[in-house]
Amino acid sequence: MSMASPGQHMAAEIAEQPAVLAGLVARRTEFAEVAKVIARRPPRFSLLAARGSSDHAALYAKYLIEVLLGLPAGLVSPSTVTLYGARPDLRDVLLISVSQSGGSPDLVEFTETAREQGALTVAVTNTPGSPLDQAAELTAHLGAGPERAVAATKTYSATLLALYLLLDAVRGGDGRDAAGLGELAEQALEASVQRAVDRYRFVDRVITTGRGYSYATALESALKLAETSYVAARAYSGADLLHGPVAAIDEDTAVLAITGSGRGGEAMRHVLTAVSERGADVLALGSASEQVPASVRLPVPSVPEELAPVLEVLPVQNLALGLALARGGDPDRPRGLLKVTKTR
Amino acid sequence: MSMASPGQHMAAEIAEQPAVLAGLVARRTEFAEVAKVIARRPPRFSLLAARGSSDHAALYAKYLIEVLLGLPAGLVSPSTVTLYGARPDLRDVLLISVSQSGGSPDLVEFTETAREQGALTVAVTNTPGSPLDQAAELTAHLGAGPERAVAATKTYSATLLALYLLLDAVRGGDGRDAAGLGELAEQALEASVQRAVDRYRFVDRVITTGRGYSYATALESALKLAETSYVAARAYSGADLLHGPVAAIDEDTAVLAITGSGRGGEAMRHVLTAVSERGADVLALGSASEQVPASVRLPVPSVPEELAPVLEVLPVQNLALGLALARGGDPDRPRGLLKVTKTR
Repeated sequence: MSMASPGQHMAAEIAEQPAVLAGLVARRTEFAEVAKVIARRPPRFSLLAARGSSDHAALYAKYLIEVLLGLPAGLVSPSTVTLYGARPDLRDVLLISVSQSGGSPDLVEFTETAREQGALTVAVTNTPGSPLDQAAELTAHLGAGPERAVAATKTYSATLLALYLLLDAVRGGDGRDAAGLGELAEQALEASVQRAVDRYRFVDRVITTGRGYSYATALESALKLAETSYVAARAYSGADLLHGPVAAIDEDTAVLAITGSGRGGEAMRHVLTAVSERGADVLALGSASEQVPASVRLPVPSVPEELAPVLEVLPVQNLALGLALARGGDPDRPRGLLKVTKTR
Repeated sequence: MSMASPGQHMAAEIAEQPAVLAGLVARRTEFAEVAKVIARRPPRFSLLAARGSSDHAALYAKYLIEVLLGLPAGLVSPSTVTLYGARPDLRDVLLISVSQSGGSPDLVEFTETAREQGALTVAVTNTPGSPLDQAAELTAHLGAGPERAVAATKTYSATLLALYLLLDAVRGGDGRDAAGLGELAEQALEASVQRAVDRYRFVDRVITTGRGYSYATALESALKLAETSYVAARAYSGADLLHGPVAAIDEDTAVLAITGSGRGGEAMRHVLTAVSERGADVLALGSASEQVPASVRLPVPSVPEELAPVLEVLPVQNLALGLALARGGDPDRPRGLLKVTKTR
């Protein structure tokens, strides 16, 4: 039996994503079936429950729900139910609970309670038959295969796409915009991240930033860098960054900015001007990365803006993996990372 | 005309808080009047719109709404409306928009749109007659006086208390639990933060963490340290911290943990055990700070848990001020901080 080489699980699962995404698109009628049930019981509000990377996917879905479905949506704080015993009235509420393992006890408890309180509950997991699946009335699965790496990669991009396919189907769409994502993901993964890895080899603090749909990418980027390379990384929406934290930016700050070609990316331009004036080292990532001031760029194939986060995260994963290895770490064995949160 | 000494505005406004809080309690019938209108048009769902420090106060209010009022609640992403043109159906929705200046263009635009879309809108500001006041149907004011310091202090604690008084009145309460807050705030401000300032003089990265109502305190602590002392500070809920970022914690990490005597604080105990096992330097802040493993403690007077955040933030402000001065900075002139966000 051979020894595992550092990061091999993470590398393998990053590479599986084109196939995983193409597989999801091929199974989109499954999501349409779930969407039909939702459409028969049209919600007036939506809640999303998740932790960790899935929480970033949930934020992405919040934008989809508000923009595409015209419904107000909120991210759940499970502790209101699990710690404080809240029993909110959830009639007419659609709860989407997102967890690759489907095993987080607090999400299971929140979902059970929400169902008792009248919510229509949907579990999006990578683990058919999981406790979360059992707690929810409806289920949708990622079909990404077992995730062995500790840092979520393929389940993150798959969750984004699954939520898109589900919500696009609720509004009556047929998912056609997502048709080419498998191939485009392959392209996105082929782009070299070597310059970015070199640039960040000794970086101490990173601020990630994005707006709109791509704010989720900024959040996931900060988490991925922090959990694999122990960088002090933190995300701000472009709007919040100017509200105060810009004061902490100077020549020693690396700013990873998500700059897509849609409205969120456009709104980032004056943020990047302010950041560049402060001397920050900007790494621009996205389909419009060529059009902003930056020291390093990571291009991403162009797709409709609401699908961009599915592709944007791919070079970030390669960067996190490359950086962890360059720093002598093993992202498959991070210090103290737990795969399933046991908190309540 | 004498020169301003570093941090004098921030110091003065920190010191005003006992009077500001007592003033709010004295004006609680004003909040009861607003609450009566809300009670006559009972909402089924609540949204909160805010940026920066106010966003942390909004998160606190989200817990109050879910636990005390039994309504689902969500934080707004204004860009869904301002960038993407979303027009969600907001009938039966209570929107609370929070901004000390009342001047953030994106909050104003979101509030106007929400009102057109059927929401009952309430502005909580420190600036009577502000654009946000004009956009909303109902208004509630902090009465904290002009805020001259760039870092929000008195308007943050006042916003917490104003939201508490408003929401307590909606559930039929008379605000009696808040009666003594002015005096307790004085006690909280008298506690020396010198040891904590010394301990953090050369700190590079700080993780702040809390659960439940006090998660807001953790978020505000990270922002306050980042914007006044340029520390790489980032907040995690205790639950999320164990989900991944705990990997980034080692002997060189300072962890500022909010440890109150209620359920949120109790749920922090096993988080602190995990953090301490990794060798982190723990600064425990709160009414139960004596009961957890820590190298430095900042006690806070004990109050009902849902009011604890009003007091917990006070020593944090003293710490942020003291640290900025110890590092030779001037928190009244942070590098590049804008008082009103102009983003849309």
